[in-house]
Formats: sequence, structure tokens, C-alpha cells
Amino acid sequence: MEIDAPDVIAEVEAAFAAYEAALTGNDVATLEALFHDDPRTIRYGGAENLYGMDAIRAFRRARSPAGLGRTLSDTVITAYGRDTAVAMTLFHRDGSPGKVGRQSQTWIRFPDGWKVVAAHVSVIDG
Amino acid sequence: MEIDAPDVIAEVEAAFAAYEAALTGNDVATLEALFHDDPRTIRYGGAENLYGMDAIRAFRRARSPAGLGRTLSDTVITAYGRDTAVAMTLFHRDGSPGKVGRQSQTWIRFPDGWKVVAAHVSVIDG
Repeated sequence: MEIDAPDVIAEVEAAFAAYEAALTGNDVATLEALFHDDPRTIRYGGAENLYGMDAIRAFRRARSPAGLGRTLSDTVITAYGRDTAVAMTLFHRDGSPGKVGRQSQTWIRFPDGWKVVAAHVSVIDG
Repeated sequence: MEIDAPDVIAEVEAAFAAYEAALTGNDVATLEALFHDDPRTIRYGGAENLYGMDAIRAFRRARSPAGLGRTLSDTVITAYGRDTAVAMTLFHRDGSPGKVGRQSQTWIRFPDGWKVVAAHVSVIDG
């Protein structure tokens, strides 16, 4: 199994960047399209545990669009083989000094493109 | 790509159970053996961000063995193809009433067995 095949990394980096732009822009349709539409998709969020795409969709659609801006650091995307990648990043918000966010995503290549099948977001003291 | 091939799920369930037993028993050697020994392995812990197996090992070896017991709930293991799985679980500690822990792991099959390549642990109000 090849790790970090350059063409795979390039694809996942593009998907990751699209996700980040959608997140900070509150582009809910794109956020939803980048998650695997399946009951087995799970997202542990900052204050909620969402099992299945129905729960994830409901959360996104009800979310306030305020204060979503953030900057990333220590982002590492690693591809295992041609169909799996992990994206790990820290994030920082101006409104939350002294705190550091962590976001982890597992991406899988499906026939219709790369999708997040599992995500976990949390905030700790920085 | 088959999702949740029964034989793959059985393998990852066994690895997950071995990890949980090692965690609650503070069997550091087994914990280390179940993570991919590589600088690209990342673990976001309850209060620390560990990039690379060297950092993960140093943390494990310095950790207090007290208060590691926990019970799991809402555990979901999903296998994508034959070489990738995601394990998501909530956990609860007697010493932390009103709190719920979340643990996510991405497991990859290597020639020497299933290994965690990315993990994220956090605690929120339950």
C-alpha cells in the first residue's frame, strides 16, 4: 500500500480546501455534498454527537452562520492507498483566544468523489 | 467497494477490543503496538495534540495509570473496503459524571496487522 501517493494527496487537498471554504462561508449544500450520505456517517462536533447523515444535515441546517471564520495550523493530510485519507488540523478563532480547536476527518473515495465518513471536532485550552 | 464486509469487521472488532483492554489496563506496550509506528500517525488527546509516534509514545509512557477505567456506549465500527475502518465510540467515567467522552480512530490494515493511524479523544458536557 502506497502512503501519500502525490496524485491522491492532490485530490484530497482539493476536497479539504473546498470543505474549509464551505465551512467558513456557511455553504451548507457543499458541506452536505462532501459528507457520505449514509446512516453510518458519524460526526462528533464541538458540543454534539451526530450519528448518521440525517442528524448531520439537521444540525447543519439549524446552525447559526455567525462566527464560523477560523484559521488553520498544523494541517496534515495523509493518504493510505488510493481510496483512504486522513485530514487532521488545528484551528483558531479570533473570538476564542487561548483555545485551540482540533478537527479530524476520514475521507473515502466513492464513485461520486471523495467524501468524509467520520469527523471529530473539539476545543481544548491552547 | 464493499462496506462492512463481515470478516473485515470481525478483525477490526478484535483489534478494537484489544485496544480497549490495553487502555483500561494501562498495557502501554500493547497500546503502542496497535498504533502505526510512523511520524505521520497523529493523536489528538483529551488535553494534548500529538504529532508522530514518538510524541504518542512519550505521552503514553508518562501517563498516570490511575482512573483509566471507563464504559463505552454507542460504539460503531464501519469498514470501507478491506483495508480501512473507522471506530467511533462514546465513553463514560465514574469520576466524571455529567460528561461524555468521544473517541474516534481510523484503522488501516498493514502487513503486520491493523493499526490506528489517526485518533481523536475529547470530552464534552453530556
